[in-house]
Amino acid sequence: MAEAVALGAAMRGRTAPNPNVGCVIVRDGVVAGRGATQPGGRPHAEAVALAEAGERARGATLHTSLEPCAHRSHRGPTCAALIAGAGVARVVAAIEDPDPRTRGEGFAMLRAAGVEVSVGAGAEAARRSMEGFLTRLALGRPYVTLKLALSIDGKIALPSGESKWITGGDARAHVHLARAQADMILVGRGTLLADQPRLDVRLPGLEDRSPRRALLTRGEPVAGWEILRSPEDIFRLHNVNDLLVEGGSGAATAFLSADLVDRILIYRAPIIIGEGRSALGYIGLEAIADAHGRWRSADGRSLGVDRLEVYERVREPAA
Amino acid sequence: MAEAVALGAAMRGRTAPNPNVGCVIVRDGVVAGRGATQPGGRPHAEAVALAEAGERARGATLHTSLEPCAHRSHRGPTCAALIAGAGVARVVAAIEDPDPRTRGEGFAMLRAAGVEVSVGAGAEAARRSMEGFLTRLALGRPYVTLKLALSIDGKIALPSGESKWITGGDARAHVHLARAQADMILVGRGTLLADQPRLDVRLPGLEDRSPRRALLTRGEPVAGWEILRSPEDIFRLHNVNDLLVEGGSGAATAFLSADLVDRILIYRAPIIIGEGRSALGYIGLEAIADAHGRWRSADGRSLGVDRLEVYERVREPAA
Ligand SMILES: NC(=O)c1ccc[n+]([C@@H]2O[C@H](COP(=O)([O-])OP(=O)(O)OC[C@H]3O[C@@H](n4cnc5c(N)ncnc54)[C@H](OP(=O)(O)O)[C@@H]3O)[C@@H](O)[C@H]2O)c1
Ligand SMILES: NC(=O)c1ccc[n+]([C@@H]2O[C@H](COP(=O)([O-])OP(=O)(O)OC[C@H]3O[C@@H](n4cnc5c(N)ncnc54)[C@H](OP(=O)(O)O)[C@@H]3O)[C@@H](O)[C@H]2O)c1
Repeated sequence: MAEAVALGAAMRGRTAPNPNVGCVIVRDGVVAGRGATQPGGRPHAEAVALAEAGERARGATLHTSLEPCAHRSHRGPTCAALIAGAGVARVVAAIEDPDPRTRGEGFAMLRAAGVEVSVGAGAEAARRSMEGFLTRLALGRPYVTLKLALSIDGKIALPSGESKWITGGDARAHVHLARAQADMILVGRGTLLADQPRLDVRLPGLEDRSPRRALLTRGEPVAGWEILRSPEDIFRLHNVNDLLVEGGSGAATAFLSADLVDRILIYRAPIIIGEGRSALGYIGLEAIADAHGRWRSADGRSLGVDRLEVYERVREPAA
Repeated sequence: MAEAVALGAAMRGRTAPNPNVGCVIVRDGVVAGRGATQPGGRPHAEAVALAEAGERARGATLHTSLEPCAHRSHRGPTCAALIAGAGVARVVAAIEDPDPRTRGEGFAMLRAAGVEVSVGAGAEAARRSMEGFLTRLALGRPYVTLKLALSIDGKIALPSGESKWITGGDARAHVHLARAQADMILVGRGTLLADQPRLDVRLPGLEDRSPRRALLTRGEPVAGWEILRSPEDIFRLHNVNDLLVEGGSGAATAFLSADLVDRILIYRAPIIIGEGRSALGYIGLEAIADAHGRWRSADGRSLGVDRLEVYERVREPAA
């Protein structure tokens, strides 16, 4: 299952509105087929893995990070039907598909066809790998990651606005990786004017993964950019599982004020700036006590001389 | 040697102006005596260990984190003479004592008395454990540690000045440990007025280790506080190997501007404050490029939900 989840995770940012699923078919202890959801969301992971396995799927066990789909599409048969038709003996799925067109129906179809089904292995890792898709289904908006490059003392620029470069090459390369895992990237108009950012993905082999670009502004639209009039406009986005908010201060503050950030990536440089531009403005906080318990340190790692700090929003589990 | 260094390290903050040395005497593979410099600087570590070893010192190996002293004092004989007199066969020392009254003279006296001497084992760890003493001898001022409790976004308080509490209990307990390892603690007058800090050490077993208290102010002296008129006044302090600057923003900024900070302890809480008081003001920085290469991330660890980040000033090695 770990391999299935990893195969799916690698497709994050490319499969919306579909989930980034991974699938591994094993017969007699040998891998017979591997698959992940393809760019744009089709073919599905199971179809890819079954195509590779061919006749070897018969009697095999199929591991998948998400329940096989049960909803017909003009683009092909359901995965549940494909799996049953291929003679797979057993399906091991990490989690149920919350899509109302499938939710449990995929498992039911498989069982009705005589396929043994078990659910729950690797559920936590699978959930993480598809949190964009799962957030969109649960909340009607993408999973939002906020990225900030900060000094030790939390500044994003000198008083003059000079901000190049706070972090080093390794941290900036990691930002490109974060971009590759987003369906859409957003900046505020201040950053567009100041930095003319390209927001592309400059990593060998990932050049084709540059996501859609969005601009947060109450002003005039700009060619080449999708326009958001407010953070709440993310509820109207189509085909975006994962949104990366790249700054600057105004955009970050707006998303935090609206409580529409699920994860924060801090790229922390070992420098002191002192007087300078703070990363964030007023986010509605009236007492220090109210700031606690909202964020959880989820990860941390060195990137050259810099450090990546990952914080996740602590939320009550969705019903 | 690791044990000798650890014994000495535990006395940091209590032995000034003397070094916090540790010593272990081993005979036939068995520890015969242990010692560390005692509060106030006397007796020396070697004398303590020799007293414990008694006759078992004869023919033994003495491990010490610093060269045994060679300068006579009205408070007792030199350690080099004590060691030779006890019949110790071999001395293993981590580093030479930079005190001009000993510098190499201790080793020379031992060798002249027929004691075998080797130098260098555990030198790096020994240097770290005595960096207060070594900085005072090399630069004529204490080793300065700056402590700041910050949010993710580098704030120390709300706009109102409310700053209680940014960090949790584990981080605050660790601050008490940092206090116990300082000979003197300093705050600016703003913090004295705002917080009426006691700056004592509230850790079980360490209550007696509360260091001297200093106030940074250009104004009136305050009873119970030693007064510093500027950061540069640390060059005039007596009997202070380690100084802990506890805040607030004005004092921290003044010490950083004067480039008189050797180490920064950031107690980072997983909270976002947004609009609020920045930790630091203008420190003389004119370009981001000039901020790089000055600080090195030396350590990091979790303290409950908070995180301690340790940064050390990168300096050319002293001549
Ligand atoms: N260190 C980093 O990680 C990082 C990253 C990016 C940028 N930066 C720096 O940050 C600075 C720019 O920051 P900034 O705050 O000036 O710019 P910004 O956040 O990029 O853009 C601010 C603009 O976003 C729009 N906006 C903000 N809140 C909004 C809301 N609630 N609804 C609708 N529109 C909203 C407004 O545009 P309109 O005025 O057009 O309505 C506002 O003027 C630059 O110096 C840049 O180099 C740093
Ligand atoms: N988060 C933390 O780690 C932390 C720690 C401590 C305090 N705090 C907070 O920080 C705030 C206090 O900060 P603050 O900046 O107002 O106060 P501060 O740094 O404690 O004190 C500022 C005062 O220090 C003196 N001073 C500063 N630079 C000097 C220099 N170069 N030479 C001589 N004297 C100098 C001046 O005193 P005179 O005006 O008397 O000359 C100045 O008014 C409080 O809200 C407190 O709660 C936070």
